[in-house]
This record gives sequence, C-alpha cells and structure tokens, in this order.
Amino acid sequence: MAVVDWIAVDWGTTHMRAWLMAADGQVLDARSSDRGMGTLAPEGYEAALLALVADDLADGTVPVIVCGMAGAKQGWAEAPYAAVPCAPPDPRGARHVPTQDARLQVYILSGVSQHSPAEVMRGEETQIKGLIASRPDFDGVACLPGTHTKWAHLSAGEIVSFQTFMTGEMFALLSQQSVLRHTVASTGWDDDAFATAVDDAMSRPQAVAAKLFGLRADALLNALDGATARARLSGLLIGIELAAARPYWLGQQVALIGAAASCDAYQNALTAQGVPVLRLDPTEMTLAGLSAAYSELEPS
Amino acid sequence: MAVVDWIAVDWGTTHMRAWLMAADGQVLDARSSDRGMGTLAPEGYEAALLALVADDLADGTVPVIVCGMAGAKQGWAEAPYAAVPCAPPDPRGARHVPTQDARLQVYILSGVSQHSPAEVMRGEETQIKGLIASRPDFDGVACLPGTHTKWAHLSAGEIVSFQTFMTGEMFALLSQQSVLRHTVASTGWDDDAFATAVDDAMSRPQAVAAKLFGLRADALLNALDGATARARLSGLLIGIELAAARPYWLGQQVALIGAAASCDAYQNALTAQGVPVLRLDPTEMTLAGLSAAYSELEPS
Repeated sequence: MAVVDWIAVDWGTTHMRAWLMAADGQVLDARSSDRGMGTLAPEGYEAALLALVADDLADGTVPVIVCGMAGAKQGWAEAPYAAVPCAPPDPRGARHVPTQDARLQVYILSGVSQHSPAEVMRGEETQIKGLIASRPDFDGVACLPGTHTKWAHLSAGEIVSFQTFMTGEMFALLSQQSVLRHTVASTGWDDDAFATAVDDAMSRPQAVAAKLFGLRADALLNALDGATARARLSGLLIGIELAAARPYWLGQQVALIGAAASCDAYQNALTAQGVPVLRLDPTEMTLAGLSAAYSELEPS
Repeated sequence: MAVVDWIAVDWGTTHMRAWLMAADGQVLDARSSDRGMGTLAPEGYEAALLALVADDLADGTVPVIVCGMAGAKQGWAEAPYAAVPCAPPDPRGARHVPTQDARLQVYILSGVSQHSPAEVMRGEETQIKGLIASRPDFDGVACLPGTHTKWAHLSAGEIVSFQTFMTGEMFALLSQQSVLRHTVASTGWDDDAFATAVDDAMSRPQAVAAKLFGLRADALLNALDGATARARLSGLLIGIELAAARPYWLGQQVALIGAAASCDAYQNALTAQGVPVLRLDPTEMTLAGLSAAYSELEPS
C-alpha cells in the first residue's frame, strides 16, 4: 500500500469510519467499527482509532482529521461550536487532542450552532463543507435526511441558518416502539400512500396528530397493509417537516445528502412540490469535507 | 364482609382492577394486579381473576362485568366492536365467556368502532357510559386524556363520532427514549412555558416538527431547565392535538376524564381557549359505567 499521508475520520454516535488517504487525495482504504461515541469514555478513543489504523502508520506523524460526535461534550474532547453565519468550521480552529502514540496528530473539527432559534450540528457541517468544496457553483439549500434531518440555508460559502427535524427518530420510535409497531411493516412501500400522506400533512399539519392512531385502527378494521402503513407514516412525518421547512425549500434548489432510501422519500415529496433536487452521496460529501479541511490545515 | 353481588373489572393492557360490589351498589373492596392483557394468554385470565377474588365468592354464581382489553382479539375472548353512532355498548350484546369455575359468569363488554375515519376504543366507552349514566343532563363532548387520548361527540346518550390522539404515548417516547431524554426532566412543570407552547402549536401546527429538537439545542446552548423542557414538550403535543380536535371542543363544554396530572394540562389549555371544563374522576366513571351495564344486564 502507498504511504498514508493523512487519515479522515467520521466519528458518530453509534459507529466510526476511518479512511487512509494518499497525498494525491486517493482513498487507500476505508475501515469502520462500532466504537461510536455512545460506547466510549474519553480515554478509549485513541485505542479505538489505533485498532483500525495502527498497522498502516509510517514512522513520522500522521494528521488525523475527525468530524462528528467525538467533538461533543461527552466525546473524546470538546470542540466548541462555531456560530452562524459562518463557513463550515476552519480546521485551524479545530481542537487538537494530545495522544499517547506520538505518530498521531488528531484534530477534531468544530460543530456549528445557531443562537435563535437554538440549533446545533456536529458532522453535517463537514458534509456541507464537502458540498461547498465539490460544487462551488451550487446555489441553493442543503437538506441532510437522517435520524435528525438538517436543513441549511447556504450563501457565498457560508451556512446562514439551519433547522433540525427529528423526523427519522420519530419514524423509528413510532414504527418500532409505539402501538403502531403491530401495524407498520419493517420493509415495503407504497408510493401513492406516501404522496397522499405528504399532501395531507402539508395542507393540514395538525392532521399528523389526528392520523397516527388511524393507522392502527385502519389495520384492525380494514386490514391495512403493513407496507402501506409504513409509507403513510413516513409521508405524515415528512409532510409536517416540509410544511415547517417551507422557508428553506420554497423557490430553491435542494441538495439532498443522506442514505438512499430516505433521500428517495424526500426527493419524491420535494419533486411533487416542483422543487429541483440534486442528489449527492453522503460518504463522498463527508470525504470531500474532511479533505477540504485537511488541505486548509496543511496547504500543499 | 357483606355478600358479593357482582364483580366489576377493568382489564387494561398493563394492569387489571376488580371491585367487589354489594347489591346496593356499594363497593365492598377494590383490588388490582399487574396481570394486564400484555402478560396473559387467553387461558390465563380466569386464574388471574380468581387470584384476586376467589376467597370472597359465595356458593352461587356471581356475574363479572369486564371492560377493556380483555375483549381484544389478543385478549381473553374477542368482544366485537359496536359501530357509531351508538350508545356505549349494551351488556346484552356482551361476550359471555365460559369458565372452569362454575361460580363465575363472565361478560366482556364490546368496544366501539368508527368506519371513517377508522377508529376503535376499548374501555373508554365504559367511562363514557358512566358519564351518561351519572350526568344524564350533560350536553357536550368527552375528552379522555391518556396514552391514547380519546375525544367523543355525544348526543342523546349516543357516541356520534370519536377520534384518538397518541399524545400520551408520544410524550413518553420522546421524553424517555429519544435524544430529548437528556433534556426533559421526569418531573417538574412550568405553566408559562406550557401555555406558550400550546399557543405556538395551535397557531402553527407544523411548529411542533420544527421545535422538538430545539429543546435539545436550547439545553446544550442555553442550559434550558428540565422542568421547562418537560412543560414545553407537553404543550407542543397537546397544542397540535387541540388544533386537530377543534371540531370537537369549539363552542362545547368538555368533560375531562383521566389522570389528574394529564387533566390539569388539558384543562389549562382548554380554559385558555375559553372552553368550559367539567372534571370527572376516571375510576368513578369506570365504576358508574360497569354498574350501569350490570343493571341493564340484570334489572333489579
């Protein structure tokens, strides 16, 4: 294998991923583990990282650029938030974390915060940095569907404002933990049921409160299909999100960055509103963002 | 103890309660266990009931009037739904369940269903029966706050239509299982925060989607108090419910039947809208409903 020039790390709550990077920007190897923030005390991070990359370290020092929850208060070391309006954080303001192993030079990138309404992100700002770095001409809004979906207004390379929706977490809780778990299938889909539910929720957002239990009743009385229930639940939750996020997407192009299944649903809902959508691969954006940070930190 | 004339039973998902009743309507004793529907196979119900009441049975047969989830498909024996518009079910249409112990004569009361929008209730119809029996002059709407809050239009002793909101279950999931569990205290309250959140959600129901994660961000950035977060979360969820339930309460008197803390919150929110509220004790209503059913079954 070619010499590892630096290491890119995305450290989330449940998982961490590391990429061994060559000087020319090539990815030499991608590795991952389930040692997410939720499983680690501060003193456990270095070992968790070394377990993935130690064998490939050269004798000199190797920069390690980390984004995500490793920078949270309960993470490896706190990397303070940068406040909007701001460019996705400059790595020269990153938190340098001392390590036992002298070969590692670890930098944890800051998250981004907003004063009013109160908002925070950790990790998504790096994907937005990737979007800005890889699509400098992009003029629009970023939407990052996930457990906590983020919407961000971008302008002139800066995050101007952003908002978070717990849509993914609500879907998981309602479909797996609530009384609806008996009704909502774990797979399957129904495009028409989704589109109708999005419309219902966008035109009457309070319908969401009224229609959730209706899924259960419809299953008991009318043998509602589990895949249809799944699509309808997703549509209600994405619909109320789109109603609230209207100031973000109205009249804008939307860059969707996230897992394929979630992005498919958002794309269908946005396209039905006449909103042009640009789909971007989330891993590619994370790597582009970490690479941009690395090149700012160590100009070649 | 005086002779047990009949036994009233409220069999829920997590608990069951039994009352030993005298011929004159007096409650001789109240007993309960955690042998709810969720813990029992059909063949376990009789033993769970006998464990509470066997010692007090006389030699003759004793009618046992049961409401609630014991009548669900996955319960003791299915008691089919009566469809609205209808009076709370007549016990002469109740499901008679054969028992091994010849002293028991078990009747499980039907639930109530609605065709469109699809709705079901099991247990609440008996509290509504209690309301109608004990307050024959009541002219208004019934609201039964709980895990699944029910709103019911009543007219001339009948349930005309009803709607279910998962507000209680959503509050429990969000406050105990979601990322908000770090932010929302398990006790404590803030009346002003509640009232403001109800207003926000009623005037802009989509605000609920936008403001949930804001509780977490407000805690991280501004050290939002856990009791305030609790009241604000409750206000957002009750507010969107009231926005959707407006056709029920607008211009009506509302009878609130439920646990005191929940009813306090609903009462505050409804009173702020100028809605007159009648508070009724839920156990009293259950017993009044079961007693009315018993007297219809065995006219004295």
